[in-house]
Amino acid sequence: MSEGLPTAFLLSIGSELLAGETVDTNAAFLGRKLRQLGIRLAEVRQLPDDRDVIAKAFVQAAIQADVVLATGGLGPTHDDLTREGLAYAVGEELVLDRELEADLRERFAAHGRMPESNLRQAMRVASAQVLANPIGSAPGWWVERGDGVIALMPGVPSEMRLMWEQEVAPRLATRVGRAPLAVRTVKTFGVGESAAAELLGEVLSAPPAGVEAGIYARDDGVHLRFSTAREASALDPLAARAAQLLGAQVWGADDDDLASVALVALGRSGAATVASWEADTGGALLAILAAGTATDGAARYVGGLLDAGGAASAPVADAVIQLSLLPQDAHGRSRVRLAVSGRPSLATDELRIHGSGPQRLRRAAFAALDRIRRIDAG
Amino acid sequence: MSEGLPTAFLLSIGSELLAGETVDTNAAFLGRKLRQLGIRLAEVRQLPDDRDVIAKAFVQAAIQADVVLATGGLGPTHDDLTREGLAYAVGEELVLDRELEADLRERFAAHGRMPESNLRQAMRVASAQVLANPIGSAPGWWVERGDGVIALMPGVPSEMRLMWEQEVAPRLATRVGRAPLAVRTVKTFGVGESAAAELLGEVLSAPPAGVEAGIYARDDGVHLRFSTAREASALDPLAARAAQLLGAQVWGADDDDLASVALVALGRSGAATVASWEADTGGALLAILAAGTATDGAARYVGGLLDAGGAASAPVADAVIQLSLLPQDAHGRSRVRLAVSGRPSLATDELRIHGSGPQRLRRAAFAALDRIRRIDAG
Repeated sequence: MSEGLPTAFLLSIGSELLAGETVDTNAAFLGRKLRQLGIRLAEVRQLPDDRDVIAKAFVQAAIQADVVLATGGLGPTHDDLTREGLAYAVGEELVLDRELEADLRERFAAHGRMPESNLRQAMRVASAQVLANPIGSAPGWWVERGDGVIALMPGVPSEMRLMWEQEVAPRLATRVGRAPLAVRTVKTFGVGESAAAELLGEVLSAPPAGVEAGIYARDDGVHLRFSTAREASALDPLAARAAQLLGAQVWGADDDDLASVALVALGRSGAATVASWEADTGGALLAILAAGTATDGAARYVGGLLDAGGAASAPVADAVIQLSLLPQDAHGRSRVRLAVSGRPSLATDELRIHGSGPQRLRRAAFAALDRIRRIDAG
Repeated sequence: MSEGLPTAFLLSIGSELLAGETVDTNAAFLGRKLRQLGIRLAEVRQLPDDRDVIAKAFVQAAIQADVVLATGGLGPTHDDLTREGLAYAVGEELVLDRELEADLRERFAAHGRMPESNLRQAMRVASAQVLANPIGSAPGWWVERGDGVIALMPGVPSEMRLMWEQEVAPRLATRVGRAPLAVRTVKTFGVGESAAAELLGEVLSAPPAGVEAGIYARDDGVHLRFSTAREASALDPLAARAAQLLGAQVWGADDDDLASVALVALGRSGAATVASWEADTGGALLAILAAGTATDGAARYVGGLLDAGGAASAPVADAVIQLSLLPQDAHGRSRVRLAVSGRPSLATDELRIHGSGPQRLRRAAFAALDRIRRIDAG
């Protein structure tokens, strides 16, 4: 289990997280970024805006991990209590930092007067170094305690990400970073999680010493992940063997996304531009295609129409993906019909899909893209 | 702080969460649903696939909360260890449930042979009642201990949601539910978080006894939330007063979404159908419009085109929203240009937007929708 790596705890602070009003996307971002620095994220805790709960969590996390990160609760309002929580945990007073105050007043000068509540954002404990926030009013903190370190960042994702890249990551790399974990991912569609595990056998259940192997069911299929803190080259034969065992179900590796893989297949088949027209799928195909990354050789996605939006007004593109959800069958199973203009081999009257609710619609779109990327297979 | 409500802890289990490969959307869903049952989600912990860590977390959570929910780690593979963790925590053995085994074999009969690893999913402790999973192979568990209860659900969102609705929520409502929290939300765009807090004054900082007031900055603007475990009617004057203080910046309440509000404004202006055409915004406008909920009186969104996708092929719609991101100015500020065909009052060459990265593109789309919903204001 990633032996010997430094560990991190993340405290995601904000009652809006626990009330379900905000999805904590910061946690996944920081999990990935920490791993790239060779630091293992050992636990995430979502906590309410409650000073005593926050203070206790800082104390516990600092005992258990080398690095404690916190996001959120640095705003100007009365329920932003991360500063107070950490001050209480480390037994220091909050004092006004005149330089921070001057920065804040200057930031607000362009918009008129600064609300007095923003002065809370110029308070810090004496042992905290300030982390700059070029795009928001909440500065971060960097607090070193013995061998450990605690960093506070804003909860707004764009501000957190910029502060991570410019301020936190460079300090961590210097202080506790080791060689980053090497990771290889193999991505499939069309095989279930347990069937894939059985096909993989010991490649998954008994990888070589120092290598971790995991299997995950996602909307875009089952993913295998191999990671190691040792030589990256140790992963190559494992990834290759996994791809061989899973055969035609493999559609990509590492950062590949299925939309781009399908657009590359259409590009190879001669289409320079692709549009979509979908019925009863809630725009799932359009949203996934629009989020695909630009890739060499891929057909360009130019947009999509929804439902009865219009046969008459379908965008002019070399290939138009037409996808419609069919009524459920007697067993409650869902199916979609797929056709791609000018590519008769991609006309089908039945792709079975799994799942329910909004996820079912995403899975319908991925099933279509998986069918399209296999176009060469006829 | 929501005095007297029963409390819940959620354990989100899976190393893929901590590695940043999966965003935990289950936590926000369960936070909202628990609140509707009058149960306060006090903490969420994301934990790795490690039996001892999981067992310890179950013990700690059961001490601190009336209800312990866990999602994930119920799959068939060797790293699915939630069953083992809970068995260890409660000091019971895992035994094969013959009835579950028969169900599983029947489920797989349609697809051929069941992989033997799936037998792990038929194991349970004697004190666990089985929670049915009609759309997946992982059954849930319901374990009562003294006054408390522990429920295990799958991590796949569609399976978790169905099991929640059909199995867990009805049991919880009977066992620990009280009157649900009443919640009123006021949604704004065009005013900052601290400026809004200052305008609101004591409405936000000193609400009446038994009412909680919170303020949150989101991509679609600043939201105010009032909640109470007492009479819902106590919130009406607060929400009305907040709306009055924030004036024209208020675009909606409660479950309203800005896309639908903008489409209603366009409907009122005479458009039955709306399309979009956006440049350099990564499809943000299209994704937000496609996800809007159908609303009475709203113009129908029929689809969108991206970038150079084509003036020539713009879908035929009564109104076409044209949005393009402009180069950043000397201060690094971002702006968008907005025009809506046939509505000269909606042509503008500058909407300023805040944030960076993908969030900036979403904020550009929301800024355009906010401008559109104000169409009546000229």
